[in-house]
Amino acid sequence: MSDKVTVLVAGSWGTALATVLAANHSEVYLWTRKPEQAAEINEAHTNHHFLPGITLPANIIATTDMETAVSGSKAVVIVAPSSGMRQVAHSLKPFWKEDMLCIHATKGFETESMKRMSTVISEELGCKESQVVVLSGPSHAEEVVRLCPTTVVVASPEDSRAAAAQGLFINNDFRVYTNRDQVGVELAGALKNIIALGAGLSDGLGFGDNAKAALLTRGLAEISRVGVELGANPLTFSGLAGLGDLVVTATSQHSRNWRAGSMLGQGKPLAEVLESMGMVVEGIRTTEAAYAISLKLGVQMPITDQIYHVLFKGRTPRNAVEALMGRDRKTEMEAISQETWEQWHS
Amino acid sequence: MSDKVTVLVAGSWGTALATVLAANHSEVYLWTRKPEQAAEINEAHTNHHFLPGITLPANIIATTDMETAVSGSKAVVIVAPSSGMRQVAHSLKPFWKEDMLCIHATKGFETESMKRMSTVISEELGCKESQVVVLSGPSHAEEVVRLCPTTVVVASPEDSRAAAAQGLFINNDFRVYTNRDQVGVELAGALKNIIALGAGLSDGLGFGDNAKAALLTRGLAEISRVGVELGANPLTFSGLAGLGDLVVTATSQHSRNWRAGSMLGQGKPLAEVLESMGMVVEGIRTTEAAYAISLKLGVQMPITDQIYHVLFKGRTPRNAVEALMGRDRKTEMEAISQETWEQWHS
Repeated sequence: MSDKVTVLVAGSWGTALATVLAANHSEVYLWTRKPEQAAEINEAHTNHHFLPGITLPANIIATTDMETAVSGSKAVVIVAPSSGMRQVAHSLKPFWKEDMLCIHATKGFETESMKRMSTVISEELGCKESQVVVLSGPSHAEEVVRLCPTTVVVASPEDSRAAAAQGLFINNDFRVYTNRDQVGVELAGALKNIIALGAGLSDGLGFGDNAKAALLTRGLAEISRVGVELGANPLTFSGLAGLGDLVVTATSQHSRNWRAGSMLGQGKPLAEVLESMGMVVEGIRTTEAAYAISLKLGVQMPITDQIYHVLFKGRTPRNAVEALMGRDRKTEMEAISQETWEQWHS
Repeated sequence: MSDKVTVLVAGSWGTALATVLAANHSEVYLWTRKPEQAAEINEAHTNHHFLPGITLPANIIATTDMETAVSGSKAVVIVAPSSGMRQVAHSLKPFWKEDMLCIHATKGFETESMKRMSTVISEELGCKESQVVVLSGPSHAEEVVRLCPTTVVVASPEDSRAAAAQGLFINNDFRVYTNRDQVGVELAGALKNIIALGAGLSDGLGFGDNAKAALLTRGLAEISRVGVELGANPLTFSGLAGLGDLVVTATSQHSRNWRAGSMLGQGKPLAEVLESMGMVVEGIRTTEAAYAISLKLGVQMPITDQIYHVLFKGRTPRNAVEALMGRDRKTEMEAISQETWEQWHS
C-alpha cells in the first residue's frame, strides 16, 4: 500500500496536522479550493495567511483537485469548518473508498440540525459513524507547527480504527491516545466553548482566579452531565478533549470564545462584540443549543443557563454571577447512574 | 448557643477565612502566638505582613491565649502550617469539647510520618478522623478578602458535620459545597502540588499551552489513580479540591510550586532554586513521598516519576519530557475497578 495521506482544507489546523503527517509519511496531499493558496504551498512552502512565519515540509503537496488529493491515499483527514463540513464530505464522496481510514478534527455542530460532525460526514459518505474517527484535544496549531509537545485523543468505538489513526499521527512531538467514546470526544470539544465564554465573562468582570477555577470545575461538571444524557462517558470530559481543551481555551487570550466573553463582561453589548470579532464565535451558538437541550432533557446546567440569559435576554453579567453564587446549598458530587456506569465499565 | 467561632493561626489563609466568618458571625476569635500581631489586628485592624493593604472587620478579635480563643466557641477552624499542625492541635486539646465543630484548611502532609492533617488532628484531640472536617478548593487568600467570588468544598464522611461546616462559611461571596470524601479532598490538595511543579517545569522549558494542558490533564489522572489506591473517590479529583485547585495553582505565578518548577525548567539546580525561594516548596517533598507510594503500591505515575528524577537524580527537564512523550501507545481511559465504583455509588 502507498504511504500517501490526505488532508482536506488548508486552514491553520488542517495545515498543522499536515505537518505532523509529513514527519511520518512520504507524501501528504493537502486539498484547498483556492489555486493561489495551493501555488503558495507548493512553490514557497508557506501558508502565510493561516500560519505566518512557518516553512512547511516539502513533502506536503497542495492541490485543488479532489481526485488528485484522495486517490490511492490510505487515510483522509477532514478539517473543514463546521459550517462547510457537509459540502466538503459531499465532494469527497466520489473518490472515497471503504478501506481508506477517515478522520476528522473539527469542533462544533452543524448549524440548525445540531448534528455532530461524524454524523454529517457518515451521512454524506454513506458509511457508519464509527468509521469516522474523531481527533481532538488541547492543540493550538501555532504550537504544533513549532514542534511544541502536544497530546491529543483519537476516538472511535471501533478499536482497530482508533489504533490506526493513532499510528498515523503519533511521533515524539505529537502524542496520541485512543478512546472508544467518539460521542463524548465530539461533545466535549463543542460544549467546552460555552465554559470558555463564561471564563471570559468572569475575567471581563475582574473576578479573579478563584472564580475562574470554580467556573471551569463546575462548568466541566455540567457539560459532562448533559454529555452523559446524550450518550457520552463522563470520564471523557476529564480527559484531553474535555478538561485539557477547556484549560487551553479558557486561559488563552487567543481563544475567540474567551475574548467574546471578556468583552461582554466588560459591559459591551452582544451586537458590538460580534461586529468587532468579525467572525463566528462558536460558543454563542452552542450556548443556545445546549440551553434548549437542557430544558428538553431536564438536565441542570446553571452556568449555561446564566450565560444564555446574558447573551440573549439582557441579564447583566454581574447579576448572572450573583445568581450562580446564591444557589441552594449543594453537595459537590453528582450521582452517576448505575446504568451509565455499566454501559462504560462492563 | 453563642455565635462565637475561632480560627487558629493568623497566616494569610487563616486571616482570610476569619474575614469570611466575620461576615456571618458576631464574634471571630483569631489565635496567634505573636503578641505584636494580635495587637496590630485588634488596634489597627490589619495583618500587614500576610495581607498588605487590607482592613479587617472589627469583629475579628485576636488573642495569644488559647483558652480565651476557644472557650465557648461553637467551631474551631485550624489553618496551621502542616509542619506545625501537631503542636497547634496539641495546644488546642485542653480547651476543645466534643460538641465544637472542628474544621481544618491546611494542604500537605506531616513530615516523615506522611500522615494527612485530619489524622494528625484527630490523634491529638483524641477524636474520630471524621470529626475533623476538611476545607479545600481554589482560593487565593488575597482574592477572598477582596470579596472576589470563591467556591470551596468541605468534606467529612459524616453528612451532618459537613453540612454544619457549610452553614458556618456560606454567603453570597463564598460558596461552599459538601463532599463525603474527606480522604480524597485532603489527598487532592496535597498531590496537586506535584503537577503544579510539573507545569512550572514545562513553562520554564518554554513548551507552550498544549504541553501544559496535557500535563494538567494526565497529571490529574495519575494523582487520582494513586488517590483511589489510598481510599479516595476518583470523582473528587475532578472537583474543586482537585481540578479547581490545580488550575489555580498551575496557572498562577503566585504559586511557589509553579515558580520552583519554572526555575528548574530554565536550568537552575535544585539547591539554587530552594535558596532563592527562601521557604518550603511543599510539592518537592510531596513528589518524594508520592514516588515512594507509587513504587510500594505498584501504581503508574509517569509524570511524578519524571519530576522525581529531575529533582533528585539529575535528569534534565528536557530528557524528562522526551521520556513522557516517548512512552508506549496508550488508551486514554484508565479502568476504575468495580469495587471502587461500588464503594462510592451504592
